Amino acid sequence: MEEISPQRLFTAKEQELLEEILIHRRDVRGNHFLNTPIPQEAIDTILQAALAAPSVGFSQPWEFVLIRDQKTKQAVKETFAEETAHAVTQFTDQKQKEYIQLKLEGILESPLNIAVFYTPKDGPVLGQTSMPDMGKYSVVCAIQNMWLMARSLNIGMGWVSILDPEKVKKVLKAPEKNQLIGYLCFGYTDMFYNQPELELKKWNRKKLQNEVVIQEKYK
Amino acid sequence: MEEISPQRLFTAKEQELLEEILIHRRDVRGNHFLNTPIPQEAIDTILQAALAAPSVGFSQPWEFVLIRDQKTKQAVKETFAEETAHAVTQFTDQKQKEYIQLKLEGILESPLNIAVFYTPKDGPVLGQTSMPDMGKYSVVCAIQNMWLMARSLNIGMGWVSILDPEKVKKVLKAPEKNQLIGYLCFGYTDMFYNQPELELKKWNRKKLQNEVVIQEKYK
Repeated sequence: MEEISPQRLFTAKEQELLEEILIHRRDVRGNHFLNTPIPQEAIDTILQAALAAPSVGFSQPWEFVLIRDQKTKQAVKETFAEETAHAVTQFTDQKQKEYIQLKLEGILESPLNIAVFYTPKDGPVLGQTSMPDMGKYSVVCAIQNMWLMARSLNIGMGWVSILDPEKVKKVLKAPEKNQLIGYLCFGYTDMFYNQPELELKKWNRKKLQNEVVIQEKYK
Repeated sequence: MEEISPQRLFTAKEQELLEEILIHRRDVRGNHFLNTPIPQEAIDTILQAALAAPSVGFSQPWEFVLIRDQKTKQAVKETFAEETAHAVTQFTDQKQKEYIQLKLEGILESPLNIAVFYTPKDGPVLGQTSMPDMGKYSVVCAIQNMWLMARSLNIGMGWVSILDPEKVKKVLKAPEKNQLIGYLCFGYTDMFYNQPELELKKWNRKKLQNEVVIQEKYK
């Protein structure tokens, strides 16, 4: 039953390559997407990366809706516009001015959108009995795997979160119990930034390791 | 301002290597951890992988508590035991029998535990105004990066979720506003399974791509 793996030990060079992929991953928006179609083989590779993600109790509580129809994307874009109008009022002065100038999605410009849902199961899930959000976190692990795999295929991905999840569900006729975790845009790009765009544009600065690491316990 | 990256294009071979790392990542529990200490350099590499994760509005809303003291681990293990006693009652018949036989954590056996917290910010966060859980999802992306980086260093990681987050916070004297997202155990291992342990043990079967992919819209 307990199959012993022929131990796959990764080399220092292989570890460094992973580091490179992590560091070069960017959130890509509509001003950098190309409309070149993504080959089915690449889409399958990205979806297989999702399916290789960890999930609590091996529950794999995920569904992926692949959207290419511009009409569907347009309907999603409408909720982005509504939520953006609402969001900008929450920022003041300089931050509001900067917010308005940012391009924050690529729904129409990217050839492929993928809506990723959490599909709760009836009955208890191993590992989720004390922390009910674990199922959603499993879906996020799948999204991060997709993001890294896309980058290794030189395909950009952007995660759009300025949306009303209930409106997106309605557009996609999603079952009532499904919960939208991420709305993702995929496409080849004319460039990848060297650093996170919001770092380059000085929206926030990058935190240092010693600012976020605590030894043993909080004081 | 908009620095154009010398385009780092990954090759097919590099993409395949990422695939290998994703596929060989496992959830490692106490029956396979070795107590060999993890060098500081490897810990730094894992933490740097976390810090390279995407975060909503570049908010980087994470803190990492590194735990090595067996007394602290013992206190965390106590909440695991309590929550497990509660959890098993939720499963019936055969599943309950199987549940009891599973080793589901490696808190004491692993040389390093890392508690990962979400640290909410006062005021609005770009991208989080419509989907308030986005900050927590950013922390999960950081955890998945750590998991993959650990595997590429041939270090096992296990995510323990059968815990009362409030009790863990108390043990670690965490600030009231912090939210525990993941409690992680790290260590070298005597083996990595070929497949997810819960797949090998037939707790659940692996879902196929065509079972979880929907074209355009739900019917």
